[in-house]
Amino acid sequence: MTLDLQPGQKLARGVSRHLRGLGFVSVEEFVPARGLRVDVMALGPKGELWVIECKSSRADFLSDAKWQGYLDWCDRYFWAVDVDFPTDLLPPDTGLIISDAYDAEIIRMAPEDKLPPARRKAMIQKFATHAARRLQALRDPGAALFDDSGDEG
Amino acid sequence: MTLDLQPGQKLARGVSRHLRGLGFVSVEEFVPARGLRVDVMALGPKGELWVIECKSSRADFLSDAKWQGYLDWCDRYFWAVDVDFPTDLLPPDTGLIISDAYDAEIIRMAPEDKLPPARRKAMIQKFATHAARRLQALRDPGAALFDDSGDEG
Repeated sequence: MTLDLQPGQKLARGVSRHLRGLGFVSVEEFVPARGLRVDVMALGPKGELWVIECKSSRADFLSDAKWQGYLDWCDRYFWAVDVDFPTDLLPPDTGLIISDAYDAEIIRMAPEDKLPPARRKAMIQKFATHAARRLQALRDPGAALFDDSGDEG
Repeated sequence: MTLDLQPGQKLARGVSRHLRGLGFVSVEEFVPARGLRVDVMALGPKGELWVIECKSSRADFLSDAKWQGYLDWCDRYFWAVDVDFPTDLLPPDTGLIISDAYDAEIIRMAPEDKLPPARRKAMIQKFATHAARRLQALRDPGAALFDDSGDEG
Protein backbone atom coordinates (compact mmCIF):
# COMPACT_ATOMS: atom_id res chain seq x y z
CA MET A 1 0.00 0.00 0.00
CA THR A 2 2.77 2.44 0.90
CA LEU A 3 4.44 1.73 -2.41
CA ASP A 4 1.64 3.45 -4.28
CA LEU A 5 2.16 6.73 -2.45
CA GLN A 6 4.13 9.69 -3.74
CA PRO A 7 6.93 10.98 -1.47
CA GLY A 8 4.78 13.84 -0.20
CA GLN A 9 1.87 11.50 0.48
CA LYS A 10 4.10 9.26 2.56
CA LEU A 11 5.08 12.23 4.70
CA ALA A 12 1.41 13.18 5.02
CA ARG A 13 0.48 9.69 6.14
CA GLY A 14 3.07 9.69 8.92
CA VAL A 15 2.01 13.17 9.99
CA SER A 16 -1.66 12.17 10.16
CA ARG A 17 -0.80 9.10 12.22
CA HIS A 18 1.25 11.08 14.69
CA LEU A 19 -1.36 13.82 15.03
CA ARG A 20 -3.99 11.22 15.75
CA GLY A 21 -2.05 10.32 18.87
CA LEU A 22 -2.45 13.96 19.91
CA GLY A 23 -6.22 13.78 19.40
CA PHE A 24 -6.18 15.52 16.01
CA VAL A 25 -7.91 14.25 12.88
CA SER A 26 -6.66 15.23 9.45
CA VAL A 27 -7.59 15.46 5.82
CA GLU A 28 -5.29 15.83 2.83
CA GLU A 29 -5.51 18.18 -0.14
CA PHE A 30 -7.83 20.55 1.68
CA VAL A 31 -8.94 23.74 -0.08
CA PRO A 32 -9.42 26.56 2.47
CA ALA A 33 -10.15 29.11 -0.24
CA ARG A 34 -10.17 29.22 -4.01
CA GLY A 35 -6.68 28.79 -5.42
CA LEU A 36 -5.19 27.37 -2.22
CA ARG A 37 -4.69 23.71 -1.43
CA VAL A 38 -2.89 22.54 1.68
CA ASP A 39 -1.27 19.13 2.00
CA VAL A 40 -2.67 18.36 5.46
CA MET A 41 -5.31 20.20 7.46
CA ALA A 42 -5.58 18.91 11.02
CA LEU A 43 -8.43 19.55 13.43
CA GLY A 44 -7.85 19.29 17.16
CA PRO A 45 -10.17 18.36 20.02
CA LYS A 46 -10.80 22.03 20.87
CA GLY A 47 -11.30 23.11 17.28
CA GLU A 48 -7.63 23.94 16.68
CA LEU A 49 -6.68 24.07 12.99
CA TRP A 50 -3.14 23.27 11.92
CA VAL A 51 -1.76 23.31 8.39
CA ILE A 52 1.11 20.99 7.53
CA GLU A 53 2.91 21.33 4.21
CA CYS A 54 4.88 18.25 3.20
CA LYS A 55 8.13 18.80 1.33
CA SER A 56 9.94 15.82 -0.08
CA SER A 57 13.00 17.68 -1.38
CA ARG A 58 14.82 20.98 -1.51
CA ALA A 59 13.42 21.62 -4.99
CA ASP A 60 9.91 20.87 -3.80
CA PHE A 61 10.29 23.52 -1.09
CA LEU A 62 11.94 26.14 -3.29
CA SER A 63 9.23 25.89 -5.93
CA ASP A 64 6.47 26.66 -3.42
CA ALA A 65 5.51 30.30 -3.83
CA LYS A 66 2.19 30.01 -2.01
CA TRP A 67 2.91 28.87 1.52
CA GLN A 68 2.61 32.27 3.17
CA GLY A 69 -0.93 32.43 1.90
CA TYR A 70 -1.76 29.43 4.10
CA LEU A 71 -0.89 31.24 7.33
CA ASP A 72 -4.22 33.07 7.32
CA TRP A 73 -6.13 29.78 7.39
CA CYS A 74 -4.74 28.07 10.47
CA ASP A 75 -3.74 28.56 14.10
CA ARG A 76 -0.34 26.95 13.57
CA TYR A 77 1.72 26.25 10.46
CA PHE A 78 4.21 23.39 10.10
CA TRP A 79 6.54 21.91 7.55
CA ALA A 80 6.84 18.14 7.36
CA VAL A 81 10.06 16.82 5.82
CA ASP A 82 12.05 13.62 5.91
CA VAL A 83 15.14 13.13 8.00
CA ASP A 84 17.48 14.02 5.12
CA PHE A 85 15.89 17.35 4.29
CA PRO A 86 18.12 20.45 4.71
CA THR A 87 16.02 22.04 7.45
CA ASP A 88 18.19 25.18 7.53
CA LEU A 89 16.23 26.26 4.47
CA LEU A 90 12.99 26.52 6.42
CA PRO A 91 11.83 29.83 7.89
CA PRO A 92 12.42 29.90 11.66
CA ASP A 93 8.95 31.14 12.68
CA THR A 94 7.24 27.98 11.48
CA GLY A 95 6.77 24.55 12.98
CA LEU A 96 8.87 21.56 11.98
CA ILE A 97 7.84 17.92 11.81
CA ILE A 98 10.15 15.10 10.79
CA SER A 99 8.10 12.39 9.12
CA ASP A 100 8.16 9.19 7.14
CA ALA A 101 5.35 6.95 5.90
CA TYR A 102 4.94 5.31 9.30
CA ASP A 103 5.10 7.99 11.96
CA ALA A 104 6.32 11.50 12.64
CA GLU A 105 7.62 13.73 15.39
CA ILE A 106 7.13 17.41 16.11
CA ILE A 107 10.65 18.87 16.35
CA ARG A 108 9.68 22.52 16.68
CA MET A 109 6.21 23.66 17.75
CA ALA A 110 4.77 26.32 15.47
CA PRO A 111 3.89 29.68 16.98
CA GLU A 112 0.19 30.20 17.50
CA ASP A 113 -1.75 32.87 15.62
CA LYS A 114 -5.39 32.20 16.38
CA LEU A 115 -8.01 32.30 13.69
CA PRO A 116 -10.92 34.71 14.10
CA PRO A 117 -13.99 32.80 15.38
CA ALA A 118 -16.04 33.24 12.21
CA ARG A 119 -13.26 31.88 10.04
CA ARG A 120 -12.66 28.95 12.40
CA LYS A 121 -16.35 28.10 12.24
CA ALA A 122 -16.37 28.24 8.45
CA MET A 123 -13.21 26.12 8.23
CA ILE A 124 -14.53 23.41 10.55
CA GLN A 125 -17.71 23.21 8.49
CA LYS A 126 -15.61 22.97 5.34
CA PHE A 127 -13.39 20.32 6.94
CA ALA A 128 -16.48 18.27 7.83
CA THR A 129 -17.80 18.57 4.29
CA HIS A 130 -14.48 17.64 2.73
CA ALA A 131 -14.00 14.58 4.95
CA ALA A 132 -17.57 13.33 4.49
CA ARG A 133 -17.39 13.72 0.70
CA ARG A 134 -14.12 11.84 0.46
CA LEU A 135 -15.47 9.12 2.75
CA GLN A 136 -18.60 8.75 0.65
CA ALA A 137 -16.50 8.64 -2.53
CA LEU A 138 -14.61 5.62 -1.18
CA ARG A 139 -17.68 3.84 0.18
CA ASP A 140 -20.07 4.62 -2.67
CA PRO A 141 -18.36 5.74 -5.88
CA GLY A 142 -21.76 6.08 -7.57
CA ALA A 143 -22.71 8.93 -5.25
CA ALA A 144 -20.61 11.41 -7.21
CA LEU A 145 -23.34 11.52 -9.86
CA PHE A 146 -25.66 13.07 -7.30
CA ASP A 147 -23.33 15.92 -6.47
CA ASP A 148 -24.98 19.30 -6.47
CA SER A 149 -21.87 21.17 -7.55
CA GLY A 150 -18.44 20.88 -9.05
CA ASP A 151 -16.99 22.04 -5.74
CA GLU A 152 -14.43 19.64 -4.37
CA GLY A 153 -14.96 20.86 -0.84
CA MET B 1 -21.12 -3.88 -3.83
CA THR B 2 -24.76 -3.31 -2.91
CA LEU B 3 -25.15 -7.00 -2.20
CA ASP B 4 -22.94 -6.72 0.87
CA LEU B 5 -25.19 -4.12 2.49
CA GLN B 6 -27.82 -4.82 5.12
CA PRO B 7 -31.36 -3.57 4.34
CA GLY B 8 -30.92 -0.51 6.57
CA GLN B 9 -27.57 0.30 4.98
CA LYS B 10 -29.12 0.21 1.52
CA LEU B 11 -31.71 2.76 2.63
CA ALA B 12 -28.93 4.89 4.13
CA ARG B 13 -26.95 4.81 0.90
CA GLY B 14 -29.90 6.03 -1.14
CA VAL B 15 -30.63 8.74 1.43
CA SER B 16 -27.02 9.97 1.40
CA ARG B 17 -27.02 10.10 -2.38
CA HIS B 18 -30.23 12.08 -2.53
CA LEU B 19 -29.13 14.52 0.19
CA ARG B 20 -25.91 15.15 -1.69
CA GLY B 21 -28.01 16.55 -4.50
CA LEU B 22 -29.38 19.03 -1.95
CA GLY B 23 -25.86 20.06 -0.92
CA PHE B 24 -25.79 17.94 2.24
CA VAL B 25 -23.00 15.56 3.21
CA SER B 26 -23.67 12.62 5.50
CA VAL B 27 -22.09 10.09 7.77
CA GLU B 28 -23.56 6.86 9.06
CA GLU B 29 -23.62 5.42 12.57
CA PHE B 30 -22.96 8.79 14.14
CA VAL B 31 -22.86 9.07 17.94
CA PRO B 32 -24.20 12.47 19.06
CA ALA B 33 -23.91 11.55 22.73
CA ARG B 34 -23.06 8.50 24.77
CA GLY B 35 -25.62 5.74 24.29
CA LEU B 36 -27.13 7.23 21.14
CA ARG B 37 -26.28 6.24 17.59
CA VAL B 38 -28.13 7.60 14.59
CA ASP B 39 -28.26 5.84 11.23
CA VAL B 40 -27.53 8.95 9.14
CA MET B 41 -26.41 12.40 10.28
CA ALA B 42 -26.49 14.93 7.46
CA LEU B 43 -24.81 18.33 7.42
CA GLY B 44 -26.12 21.07 5.16
CA PRO B 45 -24.38 23.98 3.48
CA LYS B 46 -25.51 26.40 6.21
CA GLY B 47 -24.65 24.07 9.07
CA GLU B 48 -28.08 22.41 9.18
CA LEU B 49 -28.09 19.05 10.95
CA TRP B 50 -30.64 16.43 10.00
CA VAL B 51 -31.04 12.97 11.51
CA ILE B 52 -32.43 10.18 9.35
CA GLU B 53 -33.35 6.83 10.91
CA CYS B 54 -33.60 3.99 8.40
CA LYS B 55 -36.26 1.36 9.06
CA SER B 56 -36.31 -1.71 6.88
CA SER B 57 -39.46 -3.26 8.34
CA ARG B 58 -42.39 -2.80 10.69
CA ALA B 59 -40.59 -4.88 13.34
CA ASP B 60 -37.46 -2.77 12.96
CA PHE B 61 -39.52 0.37 13.66
CA LEU B 62 -41.53 -1.06 16.54
CA SER B 63 -38.40 -2.24 18.36
CA ASP B 64 -36.86 1.26 18.37
CA ALA B 65 -37.40 2.77 21.80
CA LYS B 66 -34.77 5.47 21.43
CA TRP B 67 -35.78 7.62 18.50
CA GLN B 68 -37.31 10.46 20.51
CA GLY B 69 -33.92 10.90 22.15
CA TYR B 70 -32.50 11.87 18.75
CA LEU B 71 -34.78 14.88 18.36
CA ASP B 72 -32.57 16.94 20.67
CA TRP B 73 -29.56 16.49 18.39
CA CYS B 74 -30.83 17.77 15.07
CA ASP B 75 -32.78 20.54 13.37
CA ARG B 76 -34.99 18.11 11.50
CA TYR B 77 -35.79 14.43 12.01
CA PHE B 78 -36.75 11.99 9.25
CA TRP B 79 -37.59 8.34 8.78
CA ALA B 80 -36.28 6.58 5.70
CA VAL B 81 -38.21 3.51 4.64
CA ASP B 82 -38.71 1.50 1.47
CA VAL B 83 -41.74 1.79 -0.75
CA ASP B 84 -43.48 -1.21 0.89
CA PHE B 85 -43.22 0.08 4.46
CA PRO B 86 -46.57 0.77 6.24
CA THR B 87 -45.99 4.51 6.65
CA ASP B 88 -49.20 4.94 8.68
CA LEU B 89 -47.17 3.63 11.62
CA LEU B 90 -44.88 6.65 11.61
CA PRO B 91 -45.58 9.64 13.86
CA PRO B 92 -47.03 12.54 11.84
CA ASP B 93 -44.69 15.27 13.18
CA THR B 94 -41.61 13.73 11.60
CA GLY B 95 -40.15 13.78 8.11
CA LEU B 96 -40.55 10.93 5.66
CA ILE B 97 -38.13 9.77 2.99
CA ILE B 98 -38.79 6.87 0.64
CA SER B 99 -35.48 5.25 -0.23
CA ASP B 100 -33.76 2.32 -1.86
CA ALA B 101 -30.09 1.55 -2.39
CA TYR B 102 -29.86 3.86 -5.39
CA ASP B 103 -31.72 7.04 -4.58
CA ALA B 104 -34.38 8.52 -2.34
CA GLU B 105 -37.10 11.14 -2.24
CA ILE B 106 -38.33 13.39 0.53
CA ILE B 107 -42.09 12.74 0.76
CA ARG B 108 -42.77 14.87 3.83
CA MET B 109 -40.42 17.59 5.07
CA ALA B 110 -39.69 17.35 8.78
CA PRO B 111 -40.66 20.27 10.99
CA GLU B 112 -37.72 22.42 12.04
CA ASP B 113 -36.65 22.70 15.66
CA LYS B 114 -33.35 24.53 15.60
CA LEU B 115 -30.42 23.41 17.69
CA PRO B 116 -28.95 25.87 20.19
CA PRO B 117 -25.77 27.43 18.69
CA ALA B 118 -23.38 25.80 21.17
CA ARG B 119 -24.76 22.34 20.49
CA ARG B 120 -24.66 22.90 16.73
CA LYS B 121 -21.02 23.94 17.00
CA ALA B 122 -20.16 20.86 19.06
CA MET B 123 -22.05 18.57 16.66
CA ILE B 124 -20.33 19.96 13.56
CA GLN B 125 -16.93 19.47 15.21
CA LYS B 126 -17.94 15.91 16.11
CA PHE B 127 -19.21 15.30 12.59
CA ALA B 128 -15.86 16.48 11.18
CA THR B 129 -13.97 14.21 13.57
CA HIS B 130 -16.16 11.21 12.81
CA ALA B 131 -15.87 11.64 9.04
CA ALA B 132 -12.10 12.20 9.10
CA ARG B 133 -11.50 9.16 11.31
CA ARG B 134 -13.58 6.90 9.12
CA LEU B 135 -11.84 8.25 6.03
CA GLN B 136 -8.41 7.65 7.54
CA ALA B 137 -9.47 4.14 8.59
CA LEU B 138 -10.23 3.29 4.95
CA ARG B 139 -7.12 4.96 3.52
CA ASP B 140 -4.64 3.87 6.19
CA PRO B 141 -5.85 0.99 8.37
CA GLY B 142 -2.58 1.10 10.34
CA ALA B 143 -3.45 4.53 11.71
CA ALA B 144 -5.85 3.03 14.26
CA LEU B 145 -2.87 2.00 16.38
CA PHE B 146 -2.07 5.67 16.90
CA ASP B 147 -5.47 6.53 18.26
CA ASP B 148 -5.39 8.52 21.46
CA SER B 149 -8.64 7.11 22.80
CA GLY B 150 -11.18 4.37 22.51
CA ASP B 151 -13.71 6.95 21.41
CA GLU B 152 -15.30 6.09 18.13
CA GLY B 153 -16.07 9.72 17.33
